[in-house]
Amino acid sequence: MPRMIIDRMDDTPIDVPPGLTNVVVTETSLGEVRGREGFYHYRQYSAVDLAREASLEEVWHLLLLGRLPNAADLAGFAERTAAVRAIPAPVVALLPPSVATGAEPMAVLRTLLSGYGAAAGLAPLYDQTAEERLDAALRVGAVTPGLIAAAHRVRQGLRPVPPRPELGFAADYLHRLTGAEPTPEQVAGLSAYLIAAIDHGFNASTFTARVIASTGADLAACVTGAVGALSGPLHGGAPGRVLAALDEIGTADRIEPWVRDKINSGGRIMGFGHPVYRTEDPRSAMLKELVRGYGTPRADFALEVERTVIDLLAELKPGRALNTNIEFYAAVVMEHCGIPAELFTPTFAVARVIGWTAHILEQAEDSKIIRPSSRYVGATPPAPVPPLSER
Amino acid sequence: MPRMIIDRMDDTPIDVPPGLTNVVVTETSLGEVRGREGFYHYRQYSAVDLAREASLEEVWHLLLLGRLPNAADLAGFAERTAAVRAIPAPVVALLPPSVATGAEPMAVLRTLLSGYGAAAGLAPLYDQTAEERLDAALRVGAVTPGLIAAAHRVRQGLRPVPPRPELGFAADYLHRLTGAEPTPEQVAGLSAYLIAAIDHGFNASTFTARVIASTGADLAACVTGAVGALSGPLHGGAPGRVLAALDEIGTADRIEPWVRDKINSGGRIMGFGHPVYRTEDPRSAMLKELVRGYGTPRADFALEVERTVIDLLAELKPGRALNTNIEFYAAVVMEHCGIPAELFTPTFAVARVIGWTAHILEQAEDSKIIRPSSRYVGATPPAPVPPLSER
Repeated sequence: MPRMIIDRMDDTPIDVPPGLTNVVVTETSLGEVRGREGFYHYRQYSAVDLAREASLEEVWHLLLLGRLPNAADLAGFAERTAAVRAIPAPVVALLPPSVATGAEPMAVLRTLLSGYGAAAGLAPLYDQTAEERLDAALRVGAVTPGLIAAAHRVRQGLRPVPPRPELGFAADYLHRLTGAEPTPEQVAGLSAYLIAAIDHGFNASTFTARVIASTGADLAACVTGAVGALSGPLHGGAPGRVLAALDEIGTADRIEPWVRDKINSGGRIMGFGHPVYRTEDPRSAMLKELVRGYGTPRADFALEVERTVIDLLAELKPGRALNTNIEFYAAVVMEHCGIPAELFTPTFAVARVIGWTAHILEQAEDSKIIRPSSRYVGATPPAPVPPLSER
Repeated sequence: MPRMIIDRMDDTPIDVPPGLTNVVVTETSLGEVRGREGFYHYRQYSAVDLAREASLEEVWHLLLLGRLPNAADLAGFAERTAAVRAIPAPVVALLPPSVATGAEPMAVLRTLLSGYGAAAGLAPLYDQTAEERLDAALRVGAVTPGLIAAAHRVRQGLRPVPPRPELGFAADYLHRLTGAEPTPEQVAGLSAYLIAAIDHGFNASTFTARVIASTGADLAACVTGAVGALSGPLHGGAPGRVLAALDEIGTADRIEPWVRDKINSGGRIMGFGHPVYRTEDPRSAMLKELVRGYGTPRADFALEVERTVIDLLAELKPGRALNTNIEFYAAVVMEHCGIPAELFTPTFAVARVIGWTAHILEQAEDSKIIRPSSRYVGATPPAPVPPLSER
């Protein structure tokens, strides 16, 4: 499709739909979501294919450097990113006061990423070369899992676990959370989830990152803002609530009455429905395959709940397709990996940071600040300022 | 003007100008900039009139509560906001590691505001009542000057100065920066500057705050993102550079050759020109009045530089109106108040936090997430993922 630029010399206000729905804010070479087709891709590859067939480092390289790495590229990239996983000392010092008050893990991550950027002395994007921007992006992506894991451990009164450079990205995250060696099934599951969650269209956090990047601010400023947006209940959701619902149902015989009651009372069923997909969420379908292989009681129970929801929706609300979204099986996979429910959204952020940084680098190629307009609808000015005694 | 809502059932992409220029993202009752008229207002009052005639607490009340306070309102509001100026202990503990690496003051402020929100346990806007949101907004506005002052002092090896509730907002900020009693002229100058800088249309930081607010995230998430956007060189600018230019010129006899050379070589003159105003920036005009009253060599020098720039532009670039923007005299006023140049942008943020929080509360009344779209322009998918050995 040709690039359409509307050049305007006047400043007539341009009205658009609320929430900027369908408003094309930018062009991107990073990827796209085709909601009607149940398909999304990173560059020219199906994201789900990548999650099935590639390592996280390969997909990270694809998004940040524009192409899948060959074996030599990959070895260099893995070494380069593993070398910057460690948390710098001033950020280690931020950990105890950051978690002291029982703060929300996403608020803690926001503070630590901001502090990391400050401590690392990240220069404004505006002043950096493309190579310096790439370096900042890889550092921030590499340090994020460790920040989450360290904050979690300090919160529990445990010492942070140092990184092991010989482990892959997903394995190192699990190792640093628990201090134990993850199983290959756990590493594969987390890796597939993370790859599938790296990017997904022009959502509010990605847009936030790009608006901040358009000011030329440093990369940590962009990522900190994006973490804030992702923490919003209307955006990042709450995959932890999926487990709470599974726990609430409890036993197989209670699935059908519970679901029937939810549907009849118009209650929301966590992990179902998506604003973009009209079909099954392709991320959910991919994660379901993994869950099918687990063979645990929890996995089988989740599969049974999904089947029941879909069957009963067809019976009680015919014509209203509502499928699982990424939250449903992501929760089951993350639990299987030993990740506690309060870290589900931060773990989502581990993936998204990679996507955000790719968007930030792309935005930094554009020198135009994003500065929209608003319409004033208040009392008519100018009114004289009444003296205090006359109010 | 009637509200225009374009209701669309399809998902055809909507093209708009780059940078969302003139795209109306929201309606607001907070204020407006009329660039052609050289006029801007907060609610129904000229912002410049407010800066001349009202206290900062009065304008804060106007923006957050919708009307100018009467004497009883004002006393209650001043007491309420002064009571929450102190920095909570977990945030005091963040100070030394935050400044340890010589981090940029804006990056430190970003970290401290994020940490403050986390420590204060601010709930998501989505889950708060309007009264709870107002409380969070006043707390964040009240604590910000102290965070900047404390970080500055810790950076210098000094102890933070505790707040004095009997001082007004501007006076307490200066007191906490220096530990000394500011002069009435300093308090009046800073107050006028801060009032004039609270809000100014739908700039990138205000938009950032509203995008994050649209996800239902907590108020500190929104403000942290906005601080990040304001730190961008294309947005917050660098009022410190104005002083650097004045220092570079040095003496009165060098003004004319310096300015002539800048104009002839096409160099940028700091503190001149604004993307919105076609006339004199009304903020600059108001601050210039204050500077005229100072009678210091620095003030007189700055006035002479401005006169020379305007005269020589008329001579060398006729028809190209370029007037001082807020940065020029703001720098002179802030220096006169004893604020060091590296705190000029954070001091701008002291004012803007009040505006951002007003926008955040307004955005929180709207339940629609801001989620625009992008256009994919990369390689055509789907391509099969080549095995590592074949790349």
